[in-house]
Amino acid sequence: MDMKYLDHIGIAVADLEEAIETYEKLLGAECYKRETVDQQQVETAFFRAGESKVELLGATGSDSVIAGYIAKKGEGMHHVAFEVEDIRGEMERLRGEGFSVLSEEPSRGADNKLVAFVHPKDNHGVLVELCESLD
Amino acid sequence: MDMKYLDHIGIAVADLEEAIETYEKLLGAECYKRETVDQQQVETAFFRAGESKVELLGATGSDSVIAGYIAKKGEGMHHVAFEVEDIRGEMERLRGEGFSVLSEEPSRGADNKLVAFVHPKDNHGVLVELCESLD
Repeated sequence: MDMKYLDHIGIAVADLEEAIETYEKLLGAECYKRETVDQQQVETAFFRAGESKVELLGATGSDSVIAGYIAKKGEGMHHVAFEVEDIRGEMERLRGEGFSVLSEEPSRGADNKLVAFVHPKDNHGVLVELCESLD
Repeated sequence: MDMKYLDHIGIAVADLEEAIETYEKLLGAECYKRETVDQQQVETAFFRAGESKVELLGATGSDSVIAGYIAKKGEGMHHVAFEVEDIRGEMERLRGEGFSVLSEEPSRGADNKLVAFVHPKDNHGVLVELCESLD
């Protein structure tokens, strides 16, 4: 992977307001940004942790992937995201290596990024996000 | 938290050799260090991801916490670790905030660090490690 750094971990939470309070106490840091991704029915809340971030993910509707995840597995770590130089190039490289990349094209995610996901079955149970910052 | 950065994520894997091969392909990076923590019956393998690391965790015995975790939950993300300035001070602060810190004193972990854990029930399902580098 033309990988630059671990951009963030995503944590699925049942109650975003309550989780923000918890993580503000835990990390001793303020939530610096909230953003809704309508397409995925997700509201996000971000905390800085050095060059990485912690992203809390709450469902905004019953069809949200986060609602489905929590129903199946409970709250907890949902994905890890790596910032890459060239997301399309990485998607192609990983397909060539036999990884299941979950979309043909990257989509627009939170935090002004292009994003794509690699299936957890290929990564020992870890949902891996590739992201490329647009700013 | 007097938190400096997201130090690493820990991933519980059933077969460490196989997982190292997978993550070398996924991340396009070599595993740069392997280390056994006898007290926890765990073998670890590290990959760099910017200022953070990815730590694969394999059980070396049936009493390993990793064997127990995989039997219960399957492979996947096991914990997230934050580097702190003063681990004992943070343990005390978090206890005062009502978090369940899982030991009275920090213990010696992999990667030449003092480590302590906060119970996932307090962090919306996430096992949080505090770590303080000794070098």
